[in-house]
Amino acid sequence: MIITRLFQAAALSTIVATAAYAQQQEPIQPIEPAVIKDPAQVELGKKLFFEPRLSKSGFISCNSCHNLSRGGSDNLKASIGHNWQQGGINSPTVLNSSLNFVQFWDGRAKDLREQAGGPIANPVEMASSHELAIQVLSSIPGYRAEFKQVFGTDNITIDEVTRALAAFEETLVTPDSRFDQWLRGDQGALTVQELAGYNLFKNSGCVACHNGPAAGGNSFQKMGVVVPYATDNAAEGRAAVTGADADRFMFKVPTLRNVELTYPYFHDGAADTLAQAVDIMGRLQLGRTFTPEESAQIVAFLKTLTGKQPRLQLPVLPASADDTPRPVPFAN
Amino acid sequence: MIITRLFQAAALSTIVATAAYAQQQEPIQPIEPAVIKDPAQVELGKKLFFEPRLSKSGFISCNSCHNLSRGGSDNLKASIGHNWQQGGINSPTVLNSSLNFVQFWDGRAKDLREQAGGPIANPVEMASSHELAIQVLSSIPGYRAEFKQVFGTDNITIDEVTRALAAFEETLVTPDSRFDQWLRGDQGALTVQELAGYNLFKNSGCVACHNGPAAGGNSFQKMGVVVPYATDNAAEGRAAVTGADADRFMFKVPTLRNVELTYPYFHDGAADTLAQAVDIMGRLQLGRTFTPEESAQIVAFLKTLTGKQPRLQLPVLPASADDTPRPVPFAN
Repeated sequence: MIITRLFQAAALSTIVATAAYAQQQEPIQPIEPAVIKDPAQVELGKKLFFEPRLSKSGFISCNSCHNLSRGGSDNLKASIGHNWQQGGINSPTVLNSSLNFVQFWDGRAKDLREQAGGPIANPVEMASSHELAIQVLSSIPGYRAEFKQVFGTDNITIDEVTRALAAFEETLVTPDSRFDQWLRGDQGALTVQELAGYNLFKNSGCVACHNGPAAGGNSFQKMGVVVPYATDNAAEGRAAVTGADADRFMFKVPTLRNVELTYPYFHDGAADTLAQAVDIMGRLQLGRTFTPEESAQIVAFLKTLTGKQPRLQLPVLPASADDTPRPVPFAN
Repeated sequence: MIITRLFQAAALSTIVATAAYAQQQEPIQPIEPAVIKDPAQVELGKKLFFEPRLSKSGFISCNSCHNLSRGGSDNLKASIGHNWQQGGINSPTVLNSSLNFVQFWDGRAKDLREQAGGPIANPVEMASSHELAIQVLSSIPGYRAEFKQVFGTDNITIDEVTRALAAFEETLVTPDSRFDQWLRGDQGALTVQELAGYNLFKNSGCVACHNGPAAGGNSFQKMGVVVPYATDNAAEGRAAVTGADADRFMFKVPTLRNVELTYPYFHDGAADTLAQAVDIMGRLQLGRTFTPEESAQIVAFLKTLTGKQPRLQLPVLPASADDTPRPVPFAN
């Protein structure tokens, strides 16, 4: 009896190992759990991520547009910024953003630290300035103590702020999706329809751009390869950074991880549903019209990319001091 | 040795019991921890509290103006509503709001359930309607399942929404402040200055209105008893509900629990700091000008009212379905 069980276990582990080996050859790899090197820095970064005092109005935080209750996005076509201004581009998810080879749709920031400083000072977003943000944080005793503890400094600068934010954001990975369970050898993790969707995703060419652990985020590609993309959105893509006409409409390929949660889709948020997005991608990027059945298969596969969402305790932010600069939400 | 210790313990417990008895006579009583009767309902209420899809824009949730990272308030003089409209009155904290005898500054809602429906449909706040909010929630499979589980219904109405919100809000109490530790007999919980502040708070009459477990929240009182209150704010107070001229500037007395976190103060948010608030209250309500030392004592006491903030895991909100009505943040 015991021997039979041992044989069974050995046989099973061989099957799993073989499957795992085969799936290591897949173009998408599993998301690894976060390794937290400096918990205090991560905790400070979390506070800053939820900190509306980084904005001029005292109302908008990183979490406003990269809402961690909602797949790290705001689920709006264009974000709402200071004074209800309409943002120029769809907010990408912050989840797994550490896996992006560059940051922003046009790749104008080389990493999360460089990205984090942007929205604070962007007049259409948080509309503060690095100077004001530092003045606010430096006036708050709770922050002074925490920056001192984490960075050993009495002098907070934007460098420590973006380092802490990036350290927190690096923890926002979503491992253990059903697709990753399948990649790791659990054959029962996907249904027949989902697996058919994945095979179609590979065979029809989606995977040429959506590959790697993030299923995207590792190249610039042109929006509208086969058929031009029609949009009212003014974003030029990579050309805004390089000035090169050839880079017009070249955007960083978005991750498909948690794509079920990060609607609407594309840099202009024009596609409300996964079915629409799959249809448009098929026709414009691949010159292929998916049948309703094929589309349903791919959508079913895409939904298996939803990973374990970060479990976060809501931070309690330290109180302002009497001399903390007050927010200025209204012009009058 | 053992006997000595027993005597010491007995003597100490007598002292503590005597102190506790004496402090039961105090005009402010300790905050009791929340008793959670229906955890699933509370969890649903938490999701709804963080749910921006209850607003027309998909951007504003209850937590936007009653931010649980910030003492349950937004720390703005007037809140920011749909389309960046300026709210008419300072957002009161949601913390310990279950202890208020009525809700809103003018008491127009009799309880948390009645309150919760207000902001959703207020065109200056979330700018949705109960109909739209229900249509949105009913379209989301995750919510349908959760309302079914909690309320046994296939038919979500605003009644279940406000019941769940109120159930969550009832858990948002902040026990175990240093002042409550003192009330329960720990003589060392307050410093000499803080205790002097409390005695002054009692002897000068503040306690006439700020009493009970919430140190407020249990009566309407006139803003400007001795000296009229000068403000640009148009709020009429209780008169807006009763129509009675005698009720002009009668407001629900705000709780002083966590007052350190809920700046700025008064219904118009005119006082940025506790020192300003104490000074104005002294002159306008009591006809008394506190010396700087007295003011510092009272402020020190007020800061002992900061209790244990609710430890909350950020909820993960269920994804919209393809037919969920999409947010309309911008007019165009």
